[in-house]
Amino acid sequence: MKTFRTAASLRTYLDTVPGLIAFVPTMGALHDGHVALIRAAGTTHDLIVASIFVNPTQFNQATDLVAYPRTPREDALLLAANGCDVLYLPSEEDVYPEHYRDPTTGLDFGPLVEVMEGAERPGHFDGVAQVVYRLLDVVRPVTLFLGQKDYQQVGIVRSLVRQMKLDVAIKVIPTVREQDGLALSSRNRRLSEVERNAAASINLHLKAIASCVRANWEPRALEKRALHELTRHPLLAPEYVSIFDGDTLQPWREGQAAREIVVATAVHCGPVRLIDNFIVRTT
Amino acid sequence: MKTFRTAASLRTYLDTVPGLIAFVPTMGALHDGHVALIRAAGTTHDLIVASIFVNPTQFNQATDLVAYPRTPREDALLLAANGCDVLYLPSEEDVYPEHYRDPTTGLDFGPLVEVMEGAERPGHFDGVAQVVYRLLDVVRPVTLFLGQKDYQQVGIVRSLVRQMKLDVAIKVIPTVREQDGLALSSRNRRLSEVERNAAASINLHLKAIASCVRANWEPRALEKRALHELTRHPLLAPEYVSIFDGDTLQPWREGQAAREIVVATAVHCGPVRLIDNFIVRTT
Repeated sequence: MKTFRTAASLRTYLDTVPGLIAFVPTMGALHDGHVALIRAAGTTHDLIVASIFVNPTQFNQATDLVAYPRTPREDALLLAANGCDVLYLPSEEDVYPEHYRDPTTGLDFGPLVEVMEGAERPGHFDGVAQVVYRLLDVVRPVTLFLGQKDYQQVGIVRSLVRQMKLDVAIKVIPTVREQDGLALSSRNRRLSEVERNAAASINLHLKAIASCVRANWEPRALEKRALHELTRHPLLAPEYVSIFDGDTLQPWREGQAAREIVVATAVHCGPVRLIDNFIVRTT
Repeated sequence: MKTFRTAASLRTYLDTVPGLIAFVPTMGALHDGHVALIRAAGTTHDLIVASIFVNPTQFNQATDLVAYPRTPREDALLLAANGCDVLYLPSEEDVYPEHYRDPTTGLDFGPLVEVMEGAERPGHFDGVAQVVYRLLDVVRPVTLFLGQKDYQQVGIVRSLVRQMKLDVAIKVIPTVREQDGLALSSRNRRLSEVERNAAASINLHLKAIASCVRANWEPRALEKRALHELTRHPLLAPEYVSIFDGDTLQPWREGQAAREIVVATAVHCGPVRLIDNFIVRTT
C-alpha cells in the first residue's frame, strides 16, 4: 500500500495509474465497518483509495474533536491487510490550504439538514459536504463507498453530488455489527463495559420499532413511546427517534408511498453520542 | 385407518394392539396444524389415535357451537393420508353417557383460568378439562399431542394431568401458519377475503410486541399500546393482549424470572374470534 501525505503527490501518482478508482473516506480509528467498505470496493474496482482525516469542520463540539480516537499506525496495517492500494493521510493544511475557496459554500440542503443529526449538530453537514467535495476533487473516483450507519450523511452526499453535478456513483454498504447488535463505531472504544452493554440495546430498540411499523403502528406515537423506553435505561439518554422516508429524510406518515422507510436514533451513552439506524422496509 | 364410533368398540380394539399409543384430540375441520400433530406423533409412536368431537361443554356461546365447521369426510381422508391409524368419531351420548359422573368436577385450576380465555369465556376450560379427561380415559395414550396455538389450554391440561395424577406425557407442537403469518384455525374458513387479510396482521402485532419485550419495553404499557393499535384496524376488535409467564399464565413483570415469556391475544374479526400467541423468549 502506498501512502501519500499531500494532495499534490497523491494526484501525481493517480494520474499514472489506469483503471477504476474506488474511494473510501474515513476519519480513522478503523474497525470492521470500514473493512467492509474496503472489501466491497475491491470486488468491483481496480484501485482502492482510502483517506484518513479527522475533519475539524464537521465537529460541532471541540471536546469531541479532541477526544476522537486516532490510531494511524493500526489503521494503515488494517487497510493494507484488506487490499487497500493507496492511503491518503493529509494534514489539515493540505486539505484546507490557506486561501482555499470552498465551492460548497452556499449549497442548500434544504429539509435534509433540518432533521435528526442536522437539527442536533448545527453546521455538521456543511462540514461533511465541504470535506467530501474536497476529497472527491483530489481522488476523482468512479465510485464513493459510504456506510449505512451514517444514513443521513449518505443523503447529504447524494444531494452534494447532484447539486455540484459530480460524476461519481455512491455505493452504500450495510452497517457491520457486534454479535449483540451494537453497530461498530470508532466511538465505541470510549465506552466502559457497562456502557457498552447498555449501548447494545439501542439496536434492539430499533428492531422493535421496525417490527411495530411493519404491524402498522402509528409512527409518531411509536417514536414517542420508543423515546420514553430508551430514556428508562439509566445509562442511555436519547436525543431523537425518527421513523422517516429514506429519500426525503422527513418523518414518514402512514400510507405515504416511500421507496424505503428507516428508523434512526441518536443516543448519549457515557462519554459518547452514538447513532444507529435500521431499515424498516424497502419496496 | 380404522374408525370407531363408540368408546367400547375403540377400547376393545386398542386392548388387542401392542405398542406406544399417541393421541391427538381434535374438534375436526382439520387443517395443516392438525396434520403437524399427527405427523409428529407418528415419528415416535407405534399407533396414532385421533378423535373428532365438537365438545359442546367447552363452548360458551351456542351460536359458535352451531357455526363451528364440520367436515368429517374430508377430515377422515386427511387423517388417513397422514398416517393416522385409528379415528374415534363418537356421538355426544357416547362421550357423555347418561349418568356419566365427571371426575373433573370440583378440580381447581386457580389463577390459570382467571386470565385471558378463562376470563373471557366462563366455563370454557372446565369443558376442556372434562372432555380431555374423558378421552384420555378411553384412549389411554402414553403421549398426548397438543398445539401451541391453544397455549393456555396446554397449561390447563398440564394441571389436569397433575391434579388427576394421570400417567401421560404432553407434547406441544408449534403453531402452523399461512405464508403471511396467519395461524391456521378451523374458524379461518368463516372469514371473507378482506377479513382474512386483516386477520393476518394479528401475527405481525404479536411479533412486534415480542420485539419490544426483548428491547425491555415495559410490559403493561406495551399491552395497552398494542391493544390500542389493534383497535385502530377497522376490521379487528381485540379482547386482550397479554404478556405472561408461560408456566403461571400470569402477567409477566420486568425482571421476573421465567422459563418462558409469551404474548397472546384474542381478536374478533368479522364473524369469528381468533386467538394467537408468540413466544417472546425461552430460557
